[in-house]
Formats: sequence, C-alpha cells, structure tokens
Amino acid sequence: FVFKPLLYQLSKAGKLCVPAMNVNDSVTKQKFDNLYCCRESILDGLKRTTDVMFGGKQVVICGYGEVGKGCCAALKALGAIVYVTEIDPICALQACMDGFRVVKLNEVIRQVDIIITCTGNKNVVTRDQLDRMKNGSIVCNMGHSNTEIDVASLRTPELTWERVRSQVDHVIWPDGKRVILLAEGRLLNLSCSTVPTFVLSITATTQALALIELYNAPEGRYKQDVYLLPKKMDEYVASLHLTTFDAHLTELTDDQAKYLGLNKNGPFKPNYYRY
Amino acid sequence: FVFKPLLYQLSKAGKLCVPAMNVNDSVTKQKFDNLYCCRESILDGLKRTTDVMFGGKQVVICGYGEVGKGCCAALKALGAIVYVTEIDPICALQACMDGFRVVKLNEVIRQVDIIITCTGNKNVVTRDQLDRMKNGSIVCNMGHSNTEIDVASLRTPELTWERVRSQVDHVIWPDGKRVILLAEGRLLNLSCSTVPTFVLSITATTQALALIELYNAPEGRYKQDVYLLPKKMDEYVASLHLTTFDAHLTELTDDQAKYLGLNKNGPFKPNYYRY
Amino acid sequence: FVFKPLLYQLSKAGKLCVPAMNVNDSVTKQKFDNLYCCRESILDGLKRTTDVMFGGKQVVICGYGEVGKGCCAALKALGAIVYVTEIDPICALQACMDGFRVVKLNEVIRQVDIIITCTGNKNVVTRDQLDRMKNGSIVCNMGHSNTEIDVASLRTPELTWERVRSQVDHVIWPDGKRVILLAEGRLLNLSCSTVPTFVLSITATTQALALIELYNAPEGRYKQDVYLLPKKMDEYVASLHLTTFDAHLTELTDDQAKYLGLNKNGPFKPNYYRY
Amino acid sequence: FVFKPLLYQLSKAGKLCVPAMNVNDSVTKQKFDNLYCCRESILDGLKRTTDVMFGGKQVVICGYGEVGKGCCAALKALGAIVYVTEIDPICALQACMDGFRVVKLNEVIRQVDIIITCTGNKNVVTRDQLDRMKNGSIVCNMGHSNTEIDVASLRTPELTWERVRSQVDHVIWPDGKRVILLAEGRLLNLSCSTVPTFVLSITATTQALALIELYNAPEGRYKQDVYLLPKKMDEYVASLHLTTFDAHLTELTDDQAKYLGLNKNGPFKPNYYRY
Repeated sequence: FVFKPLLYQLSKAGKLCVPAMNVNDSVTKQKFDNLYCCRESILDGLKRTTDVMFGGKQVVICGYGEVGKGCCAALKALGAIVYVTEIDPICALQACMDGFRVVKLNEVIRQVDIIITCTGNKNVVTRDQLDRMKNGSIVCNMGHSNTEIDVASLRTPELTWERVRSQVDHVIWPDGKRVILLAEGRLLNLSCSTVPTFVLSITATTQALALIELYNAPEGRYKQDVYLLPKKMDEYVASLHLTTFDAHLTELTDDQAKYLGLNKNGPFKPNYYRY
Repeated sequence: FVFKPLLYQLSKAGKLCVPAMNVNDSVTKQKFDNLYCCRESILDGLKRTTDVMFGGKQVVICGYGEVGKGCCAALKALGAIVYVTEIDPICALQACMDGFRVVKLNEVIRQVDIIITCTGNKNVVTRDQLDRMKNGSIVCNMGHSNTEIDVASLRTPELTWERVRSQVDHVIWPDGKRVILLAEGRLLNLSCSTVPTFVLSITATTQALALIELYNAPEGRYKQDVYLLPKKMDEYVASLHLTTFDAHLTELTDDQAKYLGLNKNGPFKPNYYRY
Repeated sequence: FVFKPLLYQLSKAGKLCVPAMNVNDSVTKQKFDNLYCCRESILDGLKRTTDVMFGGKQVVICGYGEVGKGCCAALKALGAIVYVTEIDPICALQACMDGFRVVKLNEVIRQVDIIITCTGNKNVVTRDQLDRMKNGSIVCNMGHSNTEIDVASLRTPELTWERVRSQVDHVIWPDGKRVILLAEGRLLNLSCSTVPTFVLSITATTQALALIELYNAPEGRYKQDVYLLPKKMDEYVASLHLTTFDAHLTELTDDQAKYLGLNKNGPFKPNYYRY
Repeated sequence: FVFKPLLYQLSKAGKLCVPAMNVNDSVTKQKFDNLYCCRESILDGLKRTTDVMFGGKQVVICGYGEVGKGCCAALKALGAIVYVTEIDPICALQACMDGFRVVKLNEVIRQVDIIITCTGNKNVVTRDQLDRMKNGSIVCNMGHSNTEIDVASLRTPELTWERVRSQVDHVIWPDGKRVILLAEGRLLNLSCSTVPTFVLSITATTQALALIELYNAPEGRYKQDVYLLPKKMDEYVASLHLTTFDAHLTELTDDQAKYLGLNKNGPFKPNYYRY
C-alpha cells in the first residue's frame, strides 16, 4: 500500500518498478470512503468530541470536493447555516447550485461557530484567522494529514492549551477567548469517529480486486505505470454490496443492449463518466 | 451541431472529416443542463400539465444518471416517496445511499402514482406495464428522444385517447382506467417546461468556447477525432457564471500552489475527476 | 362563509347572531392549505411567471408561519439561500433551528434576488426598500390580501410599469433598474398557481363537517360564539384522506388505550397539541 | 418537579394543593427538547452504540409526534429509507406529506434494519415482532420510560443475552439470529447520547420563568389547577436565546401593530397557535 501522489511521482520519475492501481480514484472508493462516509462521520466526530448542537450553527467548510460535499449536505440537513470556500470555479458553482454561499474565509471568520477543512491543501486556516475566531468556536480537519490548519502557529507562549478531554484542546487567548481544536488538527473522521464496516468492506473489496487483476492480467496488459481500476471491476464491487440493501438491478433485454451498444453485463459507462 | 453518439460512430468508422468536441460531457454542461436543470424542470413540467400535488405521491424514476438524480432529489425534497430502477450497479448503490429503494419496475408498477423515465434507453415502460398502472397515474419521459415509453403500443383500437389539454392525453382502458401520458412520451422538460436562461448561458458558453478552441488551436493539436472540452475551459465557463451568485473564489498562495503541484490559475483537477 | 377576523370581531362586539366554526384554524386546514400547499405553489407560481432558476438564488421570506415555513422548505430544498424575517421570537428561533438566518429586511435587501411576503401584515416591503433592490429582482406575496407589499407607492410618475406577460409587471426605475412584481402584489398562490384538488378536498371536507356539526349539535352545545372544529372531526377529515396514500393506521389494543387513557377511536390528542 | 400526567390526575381528583405549570407543553420546551434535540440525538445515540451507517438503511419509526418527526427528518436526510407507524390520522397524514410511507409494523418488520419507538405507549414492539426481525437489526426507544419495547418478553431461557459494550446487548435466538437492543429499551437519548447545553438552557429557563410567574402572580390569578406557560413567557424564553444565533427580530411599527391588533411586545399569537 503506497500513498497515491507518491505513485504518480514514482511513475513520472520512471522509478515505478511494478504496475500499480490507483484504487483511491475508483468510483466506489471515492463516493463511499469520501462522500457517503464523511457525510456521517462529520456529525459523529463533532458530537463525540464537543456535544455541539448543529441546528442554527454557522459553519464554514473549506473545500467542496467529495468530502466537503458530504460534510455540507449533512450539516445543512441538520439545520446548520453553511458557507463554502473553494479555489476551483466548477466546484464553487456546484456549491452555489446546492444552496451554499461561496465566500473567502476572511469574510465569515468572525461570525462562524465551526470551521471544517476538507481541501488536501496546507495552511488553509492560518494563525491570523484563528486570532479572529469567536470565543467558543470549533476548528477541525476532515481533509488529509494534519497540514490544513496551521496548528504549529498556535504553539506560542501567549496561548494556553488546555486538554479538556481526549482529542479536544481548548486553545486560550490572553483575553480569555477559547477556540476548540479537535484532534490537534489531524483527521477528525479517523481520530474521533468510527468507520462503518460497510465502508471498510467496499474499500477492502476494491483493493483485493485490484490485486487480483494485477496478478491475473496477461503479460503486457499493465506496464510499470499507474492505472485506474477497470470500470467493470468498479461495477463488480458495487454489485457485491447491493444485497445489503435488498436492491434489485434491472437487466437489459438483448434488444435494449443492442440499442445502447452495451454488453448486458457491463461495463455500463464510458471511462469519463462522472456519476 | 451533431448528436453526440453519431460523432463517436463517425469517428469509429473513420468518417469524421474534422476534429470535434463532445461538449455534452463537459462538467458544466452535464451538471447544469442535466442535474441542476432537471431538478427544477421535472417539478415545473408536472405542475404545468397536471397540477399534481407532490407530497405523499409514490414515484418511480427509471435511471439514476444525472437527470434521474435531479428528478429524485427534487421529488424527495417535496415529500414524494421515490423508487429507482437501474441497470448499473454503481448508480444503483448511489441511489441506495441517497435514500431510494432500488427495485425492478414490475415490483412497484401497481402502486406508483407517477413513472418518470430518464434512461436514454428504449422500451423502458412497456404496454404490459402500462396495463398494470393505477387509474389516474401519470407517465412521462425526461430521458432522450421519445423511445423510453412504448407509446406506439398504446395506439390500439381498444384504448381511447382523450386530449385534455395541450401536451396531456388521457389514455383510457376499456374498464375506464385512465393513464395520463405527458407530451406523447417526448421530453417533458423540453415540451412542458422552460429552460432557465442561466442554463442556456452555460451551455452556449461551453459550445462557443469549444468552437474558439478548435479554431485557434495550433495545427495538429486536434486530429479527426472526438475530444472532451479541455478542463481549463470547463473551469473558465464556470468562473464566468460565478458573479451571478456573488460567489468569491479563494486564490492559492504561491506556497500552496507549489504544495499541490498546481498552477494558480488551474486546471485544478485531473481529467478523471468526477465532481 | 365569513372571513375569520370578522367572526372574532363580531363575537367580541356581541353581534354574532349564530354559532360559528373557525375552520381556518383546524389542523388539517392549516397544515394543508397553508404549509403543504404553499410548499408547492411557491415553486409553481414563480416558475410559471418568471422561469427563474432556484439554485443559488438568494431569497428573503418575510414571516415564518405555516406559509413561510412551506416556502422556506421548498426553496431551500431546491438550492436557494434563504433568509427569514420575523417579529415573533418563537417563530424566529424555529427558523434558526431549521437553518435559516433571521435578519431584518434592510440587512439583505441589496443582495437578494427574490422577496416573498407571508406575514398577514401590511407594508412589509416599503417603497424605500423597493428602491434598494437589485436590478432583475422579483417581489411577490404569499400572505394575505394585497397589503404586504406597498404597491401603491410604486404608482408614481418617475416609475414606468411594463406588463411583460399576464400577472407579471416590470417596474422600471429612472436608471433602468427593473423590479419584477408578480400579480400586482396579490396572492401569488391564487393568481399564478393552481390549488391541487387534494387540498381543496381537505378544505371542503372540513367546512362540510363543520356545518354538519353545527346543524346536528344538541341545543345549547354551541352558543353565539366562535368555535374551533372539534378535535375528533379534524381527525376524521384526515382519516378520510389517508386512503389516497395507501396509508395504514395502527389501532390501539384495549390494553394500550387504557394505558394512555384514550378512546380507541380518538380523539388522540389534547386540544392544545401542536402537531 | 412532578411528572406531567400525575399533575393532571391530581388536578382531576381535586388533590392538587397548589397551582402548577405544565411547562412540558410550552412551545419552546416541546420543539427544543423533543423535535430539535431528538433530531440530533437519534443520530448520536445510534452512532455511539452501534457505528451503524445510516445511508440505505431501512428504518421504521413508531410514532410521528415531535420526537418521531425529529428522528424521521434526521434519518431521511442522511439517506435512510424511513417508514412510520401511527394511531392518529392527523399525524399519519403529516407523515405522508413529509414523504414517509405509513404502515403497520407487521408489514415491514421482516425487512427493516432499525426500529425506533417514539410513542409514549407500551408494548409497541412485541416479542412476536422481535422474533421476526432480521439478523443484525437494531431496536431502540426514544419515547418515554422503558415500556415501549416489550423487553421483559426477551428474558426467556431460549434467548441468550450478550453484553457487547455499555448499553448494547445482543439478544441471540436459538438459530443464531442476533437483535441489537440498545439501553435495555430505556431512552436512547438519555442513556447513549448527550443533551446539548443549549437545549438544557431553554428547558431550565422555561422552568425558572414558570416558578417566577407562580411566585409573583397576584393572589387569585392561579388556582389549584394545571396551567400552560403564558404565551408571553414562552416568547420571552425564545427571545433570550436568539442572540446565540445572531438573529435579528423585526419590530412592528405602530401602524402595523394596530393593523394586526397586537401589542408591539407580544404576545404575537393566539393561544391555539400551533407553530
């Protein structure tokens, strides 16, 4: 198991000595581990650590990728007022159409109760911004590693840290203002929530099928490069999990398959299909 | 302007005599013309033709692509109970996670009040199924062309057609049962609803930029093949429409752009990104 | 049929010469004619008149009673960003918990795309406020009569009115700014939308049962005063409409009825119950 | 502090020796402690005990009062498929309009993944029904006391109880089927979740104001009976909590107050208003 960006770097540098599968970007992995799982774990992580009531809270979510979309949907559904920050105009326009105001963090920093980072970027929340947050506001990270919030900048003598329970620190300013930092800026969903077995099953199935594919593939199908999981396997992972929901697939008739130019057993979509 | 599947057929047959852009599958086109526009036009089309109340109605939506997703979201939000049919296990699993029961049409045909087809397929609703629908139920098509509902099968002597208003026919069975057929099975969103100017603007911008790109491209960049709109142009279309919503994009710092390995002006995502 | 406030005025003045039922405040009337019906007719009324796209639009809804709650829920569900104005702190707190920012109209007047009044009050939108609205913004009334928007104040020489289609006027300021006024400030749901037969059925049933009750009541049960529909009749109206949805009620066992101190046939709630 | 039904029993029996306030039925108490709080605590309680994924789960909620409405809204929003059981036709019709199928428990008992009771009744889930639940299904109570699930019926020799963690028992049938019982049928929201301080503040304020009112009231205003909190105090409780959300109330002008026949400071609604 190698972290995805590293794979592409190795490949680019010509140093990848075996074929590799980027399972992280298979549909089932992306949507389940990111969108659907985070839609639930953001609520779980915040409740277990802070008992915050979601209704009426003002929340800013940095990043409207799959993780951000999940966090936004869940918090909006529970009565929070959600703002979004984005660098990508397409994701920003999606946020607009989904009913979120797209703002720069500085526009709302003084009024929000909760900041959640989901960008994959670094220093998305800076010390300067943390200085301007309200007393009692919460800051946490759902993105990647621990770089999104500039936590290092909070380890200065004038600020006092108080560990109020596991994974929860109050950072206290000289004037008494407290900001609640969760998991020291590490991933909230991994540190303070649980991953449902259903999601683990999907991810593990994806990885297992990728290994089987690489092992079974005829000589030459895969070179020393990074590949996406074949569409048909992605569909297979999904089909294996439909029984959990007692979901019944419709089968194409021969006539319909011919009309659509599809094999009745899939794959059902072109590679660029977005779901 | 040439219909998309034809482009790919021509290309496959080696008969495409100029480079072509598949603008239909650009993100902005897909999400706006399909997902976001249909989320609104399904409601509009049904109200203008039938004045049906959505609350409490049982609806089956055939197909959970972008159009189906939009229809499902809108009707669920307004209190309908929505079932989904799907052939693709990935889309079916998405429907499950979004809170819809995935069924075969025959399982619910006797109980539903409304059938909406969004598949791109043909004969999705057959005469046999229309025979089993409830008195007063509605059937309409949001998918493509007029093939999804087998309307021809309803033009038989034992059934009476009664035009009750423009675009609305009552098909009457010998026992007096009426099924309400909208737009004779043609596209409801084009026949019985309007397309907001905002959506037209996005689509037209996409097409114009595609033509400009093809015209301006250096000799040899595009061969006699079908291309997707370059990611950067897709992002440009989106950015041009953000002002409508007073949306404010965040800009990457130099340091962040370097960390992410991105140009500060985009493109911001790999080609396979799904949004 | 006499308008409700008049009944109470007559009663207060001792001039009511017969018993009267305030059917307007029965649960089934309130929730269906107001909450559930307006949740749909606000969308219908706006689409038929303006073809506006809801996604991403900023909307302010004046009043968070049953009508306002319906309008807010529908527009939020379709991706609008909704603000609420309220005079009553309880309704205001409900709006907060449902995820709406509670503001004074003046705070958002310059940024909103749509104003919808649902207050039952007069002069909720004044000329001064209309002067500050954006070019192209829409103003309409879902409340009562035609007093909520100060339409009279717009009939001054410096403003030009242009009738662009039935029920739709562009009011044009000297600088070219246009505000779109629907139904000249009269009720949008009655002027520009339809009332589903299901809602009419509920309302008519309530009225018919009230008349039957007054007619059949033993001498002396009702004096020359205004009464609410007896709870049991309200429940009866609801039960008559459940079959439409194939809804199956659970019956209390003798043991359960005794435990709850209820008659197995209802009424099931105390008079002050809010639903 | 005396349990509400007891107050009414004492009053009815002429044994109430002091005036009493039924604060439980004030608006702020009902909506916050029941609707809004349970909307969050059902998710929290289920996650902390079982780590269940909500997306795609089939859930039946017994009772569509304030608590049931909160549970239904939350689970639907997170992608569960929710069924409702009801004895009251008005609440049942509300469930229909909110998009839930109203069924008898026996109709769905074999297919649901989770049963949640919110009725205030007893023996809502019987041994016979528990016998028919699926392996791995969850049963819990959000209603009152511990009578809703017939837990006593599960304490028979052929069933094995296994405590898998605090508040979580697996009840194991002879064929190996396991049903997951939470908090031994006691209140999930009190046993396995937390109550946000905001909700406690509202409830405590309501109780304190009721005591102050009783203490300060002029001789004779309150007799030895049970009273609802005066509307104006209910509004006062709400207004004290609006600042938390930075919510800004609109004030009536003199002219508007006169038009509505209201005092500018409230109360703003008649006593029978339902919110």
